[in-house]
Amino acid sequence: MPDNALPTIAVLGGTGKEGNGLALRWAHKGHPVIIGSRSAERAQEAADAMNATLGTGNARGATNPDAAAAAEIVVLSVPFAGQQAAVAEVAGHLQGKILIDVTVPLVPPKVSVVQLPNGGSAVEAVQTMLGDGVRVVSAFQNISAHHLAHLDQEMDCDVLVCANDPAAADTVVELAREIGLRAWNAGPLANSVVAEGLTSILIALNRRYKVPGSGIRITGI
Amino acid sequence: MPDNALPTIAVLGGTGKEGNGLALRWAHKGHPVIIGSRSAERAQEAADAMNATLGTGNARGATNPDAAAAAEIVVLSVPFAGQQAAVAEVAGHLQGKILIDVTVPLVPPKVSVVQLPNGGSAVEAVQTMLGDGVRVVSAFQNISAHHLAHLDQEMDCDVLVCANDPAAADTVVELAREIGLRAWNAGPLANSVVAEGLTSILIALNRRYKVPGSGIRITGI
Repeated sequence: MPDNALPTIAVLGGTGKEGNGLALRWAHKGHPVIIGSRSAERAQEAADAMNATLGTGNARGATNPDAAAAAEIVVLSVPFAGQQAAVAEVAGHLQGKILIDVTVPLVPPKVSVVQLPNGGSAVEAVQTMLGDGVRVVSAFQNISAHHLAHLDQEMDCDVLVCANDPAAADTVVELAREIGLRAWNAGPLANSVVAEGLTSILIALNRRYKVPGSGIRITGI
Repeated sequence: MPDNALPTIAVLGGTGKEGNGLALRWAHKGHPVIIGSRSAERAQEAADAMNATLGTGNARGATNPDAAAAAEIVVLSVPFAGQQAAVAEVAGHLQGKILIDVTVPLVPPKVSVVQLPNGGSAVEAVQTMLGDGVRVVSAFQNISAHHLAHLDQEMDCDVLVCANDPAAADTVVELAREIGLRAWNAGPLANSVVAEGLTSILIALNRRYKVPGSGIRITGI
């Protein structure tokens, strides 16, 4: 790993488009990044490709539990159907850390319709699973994976950051700003239902107005 | 009433800030507007004040049921606690019409925390109450009442319009554009949970970042 004062970030599900895009952006800014996957081999392949793209050695691959164990900040970016299983698998490695949950509760095939799990936000269930020893933060659900993957692409979308611990939210706001995203502390995890649902609305707008990646901006601040 | 081809709009709860601001904007653009209230007298006072402000005679007052009966398009802008009672009171006058629901499920005192009624959007319950003969549309929850009230104020906020009938949504998108608001057809009523919840987030942002009226813009379209 590079000799670097920036915290190490593990991205569980980092071989997927959204997680990979976030990992790429943080590695590009000098963070040691661990790409997590169910397969250590696929994780390492993704890390090798990222290092080749960036011309650095900031990324490495690992299984999700190994990635979570070795990182100071852990990002969860897996399909909604696998969210709780992924959390259960790494729970023992998260105590005292920040877990940034990027999961969007999309329920195929109607991914453009908001379908809330048990009528609330998906991330609240994760906080309940993990208990107060893990500071769970919801963020990045609305950022186009396509835009993340292209380092020269302006990302015209703000990040709503929700957490029951405001200091943890502030840390994630700063991590977002590091990669060029404007981010806002938007209140407790209960408010994440808006960020989670908004992804379905952006998908609906992309289809109806035939654009590749709509987003949102907060105005008036 | 003025001789005018524009449809008549009733705003139930039109003596409240948000409803009054919307009524003012439509009356300013030439719509015959009926301000509805539980009290016909308070409604007429509000209409008189509006006519004095605008120098026109476009507004008149009535009880909520009389207002609903006389209008082609009905807007509901009442506190969340009174939403379902207000709908029940006017249901018989809504058949075949569009009902635009502006209600935000704010639950005092924690109005900056998203608190969904029964885990879904408030407006879906209204559509269920009224049946398919009324085309219920959700819109305008995120527009600052302060900005609506000042005709010279730029409204730097988009409108998310949700309806199970896309043509009804398109009609409301057009009504929003008439008063200078950019609006988007954001899918079925299930998606309104985002617009309803977003108001709590904007309140949270107003408090945290000490601004009077934050809003949202859709980007990338």
